[in-house]
Amino acid sequence: MSHLDAVLARLDADLDASLERLFHLLRIPSISTDPAYAADCRRAADWLVEDLAGMGFDASARATEGHPIVVAHDRSASGPSALFYGHYDVQPVDPLDLWEHDPFAPFIQTRPDGTRCIRARGAADDKGQVMTFVEACRAWKAVAGALPVPVSILIEGEEESGGKHLPPFMRAHADELRADIGLICDTGMWSAEVPAITTMLRGLCGEEIVITAADRDLHSGGYGSAAANPNHILARILADLHDDRGRVTIPHFYDGVHELPEAIRRQWADLGFDVEGFLGPIGLGVPAGEQERSALEMIWSRPTAEVNGMGGGYQGAGFKTVIPSKASAKVSFRLVFDQDPHEVRRHFRDFVRARIPADCKVDFIEHGSGRAQAFDTAAAPFEKARRALSAEWGVEAPFIGCGGSIPVTREFKEGLGMDVILAGFGLEDDRIHSPNEKYEMESFRKGARAWARILAALAA
Amino acid sequence: MSHLDAVLARLDADLDASLERLFHLLRIPSISTDPAYAADCRRAADWLVEDLAGMGFDASARATEGHPIVVAHDRSASGPSALFYGHYDVQPVDPLDLWEHDPFAPFIQTRPDGTRCIRARGAADDKGQVMTFVEACRAWKAVAGALPVPVSILIEGEEESGGKHLPPFMRAHADELRADIGLICDTGMWSAEVPAITTMLRGLCGEEIVITAADRDLHSGGYGSAAANPNHILARILADLHDDRGRVTIPHFYDGVHELPEAIRRQWADLGFDVEGFLGPIGLGVPAGEQERSALEMIWSRPTAEVNGMGGGYQGAGFKTVIPSKASAKVSFRLVFDQDPHEVRRHFRDFVRARIPADCKVDFIEHGSGRAQAFDTAAAPFEKARRALSAEWGVEAPFIGCGGSIPVTREFKEGLGMDVILAGFGLEDDRIHSPNEKYEMESFRKGARAWARILAALAA
Repeated sequence: MSHLDAVLARLDADLDASLERLFHLLRIPSISTDPAYAADCRRAADWLVEDLAGMGFDASARATEGHPIVVAHDRSASGPSALFYGHYDVQPVDPLDLWEHDPFAPFIQTRPDGTRCIRARGAADDKGQVMTFVEACRAWKAVAGALPVPVSILIEGEEESGGKHLPPFMRAHADELRADIGLICDTGMWSAEVPAITTMLRGLCGEEIVITAADRDLHSGGYGSAAANPNHILARILADLHDDRGRVTIPHFYDGVHELPEAIRRQWADLGFDVEGFLGPIGLGVPAGEQERSALEMIWSRPTAEVNGMGGGYQGAGFKTVIPSKASAKVSFRLVFDQDPHEVRRHFRDFVRARIPADCKVDFIEHGSGRAQAFDTAAAPFEKARRALSAEWGVEAPFIGCGGSIPVTREFKEGLGMDVILAGFGLEDDRIHSPNEKYEMESFRKGARAWARILAALAA
Repeated sequence: MSHLDAVLARLDADLDASLERLFHLLRIPSISTDPAYAADCRRAADWLVEDLAGMGFDASARATEGHPIVVAHDRSASGPSALFYGHYDVQPVDPLDLWEHDPFAPFIQTRPDGTRCIRARGAADDKGQVMTFVEACRAWKAVAGALPVPVSILIEGEEESGGKHLPPFMRAHADELRADIGLICDTGMWSAEVPAITTMLRGLCGEEIVITAADRDLHSGGYGSAAANPNHILARILADLHDDRGRVTIPHFYDGVHELPEAIRRQWADLGFDVEGFLGPIGLGVPAGEQERSALEMIWSRPTAEVNGMGGGYQGAGFKTVIPSKASAKVSFRLVFDQDPHEVRRHFRDFVRARIPADCKVDFIEHGSGRAQAFDTAAAPFEKARRALSAEWGVEAPFIGCGGSIPVTREFKEGLGMDVILAGFGLEDDRIHSPNEKYEMESFRKGARAWARILAALAA
């Protein structure tokens, strides 16, 4: 029996005990955004330190101005090193009356078809996922006496509340934390049967515009048509953002946008993405956006411009024949490949200014920005990890995209110069951030086994 | 000395006493919209009844389900009859701290240049204007023993609070109220030196649209571009309402819109309308709207489409990357000449529906409608009244338009089959509906003299 086979067998044999440990962590209400739970966050960090130290890690809870950050090292192995990231804090639980049970009293639910899931706040996001990696390390050390590769573990406690203390911590401790590859377990599978590695994350550029026409609200009977209406100006700008094929019309918007590498394109085509299955559950049926692109490209690899909010004039009950002084909108751009958020913002502002009448004005409010990330899947660790996942599930694991952003990955790249393998085992229906969160037992069990495989593969 | 000259002399001699009477009425806080002032509304009506009865009118306060309506008749004269309309109720006075004096303690303010004005809530809207007519009648009766023509007076108490009891009252008492011409004193002059008769009132069609895309709010990272965004759909619809020359693009919108009669066009051109003087005080300088039309046409004789309110998605502080389920807008159309509000509404709805994607939906909420009104200025009473005004001010009085609507004029036309001479003496800066309302002493003095002249002219 190889070391890996023994480790996998050990994980299966130790499943009940590993659930016990996870439940202990789940019972701690480590809600980071609410100061009332600061001591619980501390308890969660301390519990992790104790658990990691107990299996031989050099572990400590590092103080920050916020909640502590757990750092643990076991660098006894040689070979390429890995830095694992997760978070021990959880989302608030309100509205509490929508929960079918105590969010912090974890239990295993067995469904009529025999499948099982772990029910608790944080089961999927992110305590259950963190513990898949911790249990993989435990099994390796128990069976082989050592990890296959040098491993550092970084578990923060503010992911759900802004995470503002992590980036300075990572930069201040860059030499301590830097490794050859990052590992993060905070994402999802492609489907319940198909694991995946997320290798493309979109960037973001948020911008608010406020248009002012007259210096006061006007009566539309007395001034209508002759006086500029900021609602009309705003509607024109927002309508102009897209052409009738769904392309964004801002000049230079597509600078730095590339076509998908052929290998990725083929993988995505093989996923058999079901547009009706995607849009149907939300009451829609026709993909909006770029008509030349598939819906999967739209959400994973194409840049977008979305009006997240807009308003002007009277929005209450009834009717008021007013021409408002101001109208405003919040617009976000999802960015891909090499799009520069600052350039996008600059070109958008020019685009808006060109549509403001000479006697009106516009103010801009910046709302954050970040570049897209695309990891080099040709680098050896990605293919190794992909094969490890494929072996565990018995299906080909694809490299997939993600419509959103995961800020910490930028810190890995920009602060530490590291690529990151995002391998997580969550499912769409895990209800993270909502009442009745759950994590599939199979995600927990196979997740731990998958990490055991990945650690072995990275050493090879 | 002719009767008229004696009447005018009497009005001048009686000015102080007439101000006393007006002040008595102004001291009554007849705020119709606030039930706390119901007794005061009743007192204002009773005071008017007593005053009119005292000079020989057959006057009474008629009960309605709301505030009473004052009706008075003096039909002892022969010749064409007139029905005068005004209102005794006033706007609320909040915010009270913006008033420089007690709104219901009227006084005369003398400015450094010697001009004087009457300060109080209701001074201009409409008690001061009502009393110009009442004083003209009083002077006629005192001097000549009788009015020049049969006169009925209708003074309601709900003009500032919806006025819903007046139309049924007018229809129920149509035979009692019907006269050859209507007279209303609730509008303004062209300028402080130039009186005017308003002969064109725009109609109105108010419509609210609510667009629903997905059946819940979505995260723009996960769904952006692929899922329909109702903000985008709404912005497109609202932007499409006007072409780049400012014309409304709804098919058939201009059905029933006519060019101005040449005589009116010439009068308006002679007014020397000052666009900068109109837009400058509100912080604007470039007429929006139809580029082929003058600003005066835009607000008096051209139809408009204005977005009075619109909203969708997150409008609070900060940013939220949401794709909302719904977006909505309130749109009003000002109508002119023979435009049919119901047809405008129908064509607008078709216009909107044509822009709703197959998997989204739109709901419409109707918000009232009324046709435009244009009185036949070639009819004898209009020219007679115009000459009377011109004689009093020593300048040529024009027939002018009005961007807004005055619902009661529609009731005169549709309920009683009467045209209405709208001759009022308010000025732009009277601050009606605002703190520190005032009415020019010259408006009150010359207004009463003008009505005395008009009554004489109607008899001729």
